[in-house]
Parts: sequence; structure tokens; C-alpha cells
Amino acid sequence: MAEVQLFGVWGSPFSRRAEIALKLKGVEYQYIEEDLSNKSSLLLQYNPVHKKVPVLVHKGKPIAESLVILEYIDEAWKNNPILPEHPYERALARFWAKFIDEKCLPALWTACWNQEKEREEELIREACEHLKSLENELKDKRFFGGEKIGLVDIAANFIGYWLGIIQEASGRLELLTEEKFPKLYKWSEEYINCSVIKENLPPREKLLGFMRSRYAALN
Amino acid sequence: MAEVQLFGVWGSPFSRRAEIALKLKGVEYQYIEEDLSNKSSLLLQYNPVHKKVPVLVHKGKPIAESLVILEYIDEAWKNNPILPEHPYERALARFWAKFIDEKCLPALWTACWNQEKEREEELIREACEHLKSLENELKDKRFFGGEKIGLVDIAANFIGYWLGIIQEASGRLELLTEEKFPKLYKWSEEYINCSVIKENLPPREKLLGFMRSRYAALN
Repeated sequence: MAEVQLFGVWGSPFSRRAEIALKLKGVEYQYIEEDLSNKSSLLLQYNPVHKKVPVLVHKGKPIAESLVILEYIDEAWKNNPILPEHPYERALARFWAKFIDEKCLPALWTACWNQEKEREEELIREACEHLKSLENELKDKRFFGGEKIGLVDIAANFIGYWLGIIQEASGRLELLTEEKFPKLYKWSEEYINCSVIKENLPPREKLLGFMRSRYAALN
Repeated sequence: MAEVQLFGVWGSPFSRRAEIALKLKGVEYQYIEEDLSNKSSLLLQYNPVHKKVPVLVHKGKPIAESLVILEYIDEAWKNNPILPEHPYERALARFWAKFIDEKCLPALWTACWNQEKEREEELIREACEHLKSLENELKDKRFFGGEKIGLVDIAANFIGYWLGIIQEASGRLELLTEEKFPKLYKWSEEYINCSVIKENLPPREKLLGFMRSRYAALN
């Protein structure tokens, strides 16, 4: 068994968070693709509470929940820090990563896949309010972490990559656009063009095709 | 202005998490009681995203979200650690604290205040499944943190104290009982009898009266 294993799913932004962190640290690992319609017994054994990917296994010990995995990777391998050094900056990074998971992503996901026409405007407004909070937090920094990619950038990978592809697949949604959120839009371009990120994102055409078929199945 | 300020609400388990951590560390602080029906302009300024308590202000810099505050307190004051030392143990503590906030507490809260008779059984079953996960995790340890109170214990303070009072106020709910969850029940007794915890919980009669009036208002 490899010393470091990662159980993930190719199209999952949460699995990719863990992979990006391992790549940033230069950690070698074995990647194991899961089939969510037929989860492996190892996945169920390693994450009995949530039964979800990603799961990182280090020296036989499993860790679940992508933000918990990111903090673990940052503590277990000290080079190329993902969190800032100072306690206050660390608290801010944790605050925004949590905000992304608990507020921003659920609202974006709901707005993207909503089928009730009469709720559309309200859901888009709510999702955009959360994007606005991120736009304000970004200020004129290159990344949320400053000059280097950090916890919040990695946590925001859905916004940087997946969201644009879902918008394109929908043929109509406009959530993250250059006009609405110029700073966040610029951030997303910078983010996906960083070499370590670019090399670790799911293939664009494959993801776009997957999202298009999800939209087609709705109609 | 005091060097450390805490904006909280007397009956909030989330505010009390922050207070317990400050007391464990022996940090002096100024406590500021908020009126949630008329939030202070300082609270809104310090936590513009969520507009919620608790907010910790250290040397003029605000930190929101109780789990983020706990990690901050542990990093800013090194004595009496709240998180374990080893990265893997830290990851487990973060996993369970997150589980409590994202799964356990919402399910318990919904089960406690549900008014639809036909959903009652299902909601209680779901909440008890989460309590069972905690019971299994506790094993034969005195506290989730081992011999000493740590992050998970503090995160679970609602289960240790509030839940029993809500059950009593309801006059019928049975979620955490000695028969159903003997280990968790024993933990709750140990927890609320620790001096630093006992001295920092809201007064029992006041909280019971508050919960009784909430139940009365439902009928």
C-alpha cells in the first residue's frame, strides 16, 4: 500500500482540493477513483460517517472532509505553507473557507440547478450576494492568500473553474461574469492559469460534456 | 477598550464555546452581551457577513464563527492546549467538531422544535443516529479529548448541557438518555461538572424557564 492514498472522483471540486494541496507540497500519492454509484468497501470503511470522497489515507490512517484534509496536509508536510503563519491571518483564512463551504457553494449549486422559474431571480440574487462578499474580501490581492495560492483559493476552486463551465453548459446562467465581479473574475483567470492548478483540474471538455448532459436530463 | 472583547448572548452555546476556551486559557476579557433583536452597530461592523455572535475582538481585530474562534484562541495563547498536538489527532478533532456543527446540532435542533407530529419519529431517529456516531467515537474515554477537555468537548457543549434542559422543558422528548447513549450521557455529566465548564454555563433555572416559554409559545 502506498504511504499516501487519495480516494476521489474525477469531477469533484472537493477531491481536487486535496490533490492540489498534495501537489503544492510535492507529496507523492496513489489516486484511487471511486464510483459514487457503487462505493468501494474501503471508502465506506474509511469514512463511515459521511461515506463521501475525498478521503486521504496516510500511513493507513484515514482523514475525511476536504477542509480538514487541507489543514492536515499543511501540518503533516511543512514546506510550501497553505495557511498563513500568523494566528489572525489563519483565522481569516479559515473563516472564508468555511463561508465558501457553508454559504457560497450551497447557494451557487442551488441557483445552478434550480428548475422553478419563479424562484430563479431570488436564488441568483442570493448566490450573487455571497460572491459579492468574496469580491470585497479579495480587494486588490492577486489571490485570497496574497501573492501565493492558499487555503481560501483552493477552497474556492469550484468558483474558479467549475462555475464558468456550468454557466456555459446551462446556456443562460450569469453568476460570475467580468461585468458583475471584475476582481473575482480576474482571480479565477489567474487561478486556473497557475501551473499547479491547471495541471490538476478535470479536463474542460469532459466536464463541460458532463454538465451539458446534466442540463439536458433536466429538460 | 479591553485587549480582548467577546460579543455574545447569555443563552447561546456558541458564545459559551468562546468563553470556555478563554477561561481554560486564563485570558482576561470584557464580555459584551448582545441583544439579537437589536444588534449593536459594533457587532454588525465586526461580523458583516453573518451578523451573528460570538465575535472575539483581539487588539481591535475581529474574528467570527465559534470554531474559528476556538482555533484562534488555541494558537494565540499556547498554554492549556485545546487541540491535540499530533496532526492526525488534530484532524480527528476538527472532523468531529465539524460533524457536530454540520450534522448533529441541526438535526437535534430540528427534532427539538418540530411541530409536525407525523415527522417526529423520523426526525428523532435521524438525530439519534448522529448521537450514536458520537457515542461510538467517545468509546471509553473520559472526554472526547481523552483525559482533558478539548475542541470536540467544547463544540459538543449543546449536547452536554442545553439538550437535557430542552428535553426537560419539552416534557416529552427523549434524545440523550442514559439508556439510549450510556457513554455520551456519562460524558455529559462529567463535562458539566468540570469546574471551568460549570462556572461558565448559563444558569440552569433561567435557561429552563426560557426553553419552557419557547415551548409554551408553540402551543
